[in-house]
Amino acid sequence: MSTTSKGEKTRDHILKTTRKILVAKGFHNTSISAVIEGTGVKKGNLYYHFTSKEDLGLAVLEDAKDEFFSFLTKTLVGRDPVEKIINSCKAIFAEQEKNNFVGGCLFGNTALEMTDSNERFSEVIQEVFSRWTGLLTEHLDEARNTGLLPSSTQPRLLAKTVVATLEGAIMMSRVSKNKNDLTDFLAAITGLLGR
Amino acid sequence: MSTTSKGEKTRDHILKTTRKILVAKGFHNTSISAVIEGTGVKKGNLYYHFTSKEDLGLAVLEDAKDEFFSFLTKTLVGRDPVEKIINSCKAIFAEQEKNNFVGGCLFGNTALEMTDSNERFSEVIQEVFSRWTGLLTEHLDEARNTGLLPSSTQPRLLAKTVVATLEGAIMMSRVSKNKNDLTDFLAAITGLLGR
Repeated sequence: MSTTSKGEKTRDHILKTTRKILVAKGFHNTSISAVIEGTGVKKGNLYYHFTSKEDLGLAVLEDAKDEFFSFLTKTLVGRDPVEKIINSCKAIFAEQEKNNFVGGCLFGNTALEMTDSNERFSEVIQEVFSRWTGLLTEHLDEARNTGLLPSSTQPRLLAKTVVATLEGAIMMSRVSKNKNDLTDFLAAITGLLGR
Repeated sequence: MSTTSKGEKTRDHILKTTRKILVAKGFHNTSISAVIEGTGVKKGNLYYHFTSKEDLGLAVLEDAKDEFFSFLTKTLVGRDPVEKIINSCKAIFAEQEKNNFVGGCLFGNTALEMTDSNERFSEVIQEVFSRWTGLLTEHLDEARNTGLLPSSTQPRLLAKTVVATLEGAIMMSRVSKNKNDLTDFLAAITGLLGR
């Protein structure tokens, strides 16, 4: 028996297509009719899976969150914890370049658009930032404890700085559309980590 | 003879009020009727000063840009160039706290909302980021040349990192609404600058 039913496939198709629309247009500018047109799913079927636009938006964020943490796990690879972080940042910047600097970070975009007005969206995004920071903190803890970083290193502070720099870098390179910016920011992060 | 005519006062009143609306709602969600309601200016008068919503949005960005660079000049003060940068970052975070973490950075918000779709908006924001980075680079150049920073310091790279960290920090603290985050990010930037 397959665990992916037709209903689940439809739900996933709606989530992935809506994510693309949300990245391009933001939550407020995405209408339910644009989702219906983009997905080709009938209105009744859409509302069978998601009771409201807010519900759909939250499900898209949750789905993107799960995918992002799989991506982080896959990209945090290397010979030591510092190299793992640098490789993961490289992979994030490579995604940004692959997308021609368009769209940027769904979580960052939604943070700026929704966080003041919608607590449920805010909670998911806060979870993304804090789990991401937590993951990097674990790696930096290990790096400090094994002497790869000086004993004065503050792993949580450094992890937050790396995440903030990445978010700022994605924002700034979206504006400049300049590949050199990403190269610079990667060099900056590499420097932060003492390499 | 006063150089501030009644027309200029009205124009400025429209700019400042629209800026508040744009920070709260973004460009796409701000209707001309909301601007008319918020400013109390008649439609004809509004269109006398700004020919379109895009025109108004651009003028708001230009006005905010001028104000931001005055703010930077006023806050880049201290005994030496490194202290100047730290004090300016402190002042930026103090603004963020004063606004209860609501609204964030108009340039950052507009970057994420508009940069992929509107080249004119994108140009103004790119100018903000590059002039800001340029100003910090000059200070860091001076710091390196006077031995306040190691000779291996790359002023432009470090300046970009500071700006990216600030933008990321404003984004992340808007989500967390937690004052400790700003304290952490200020410590991180202070650390970046070797203090």
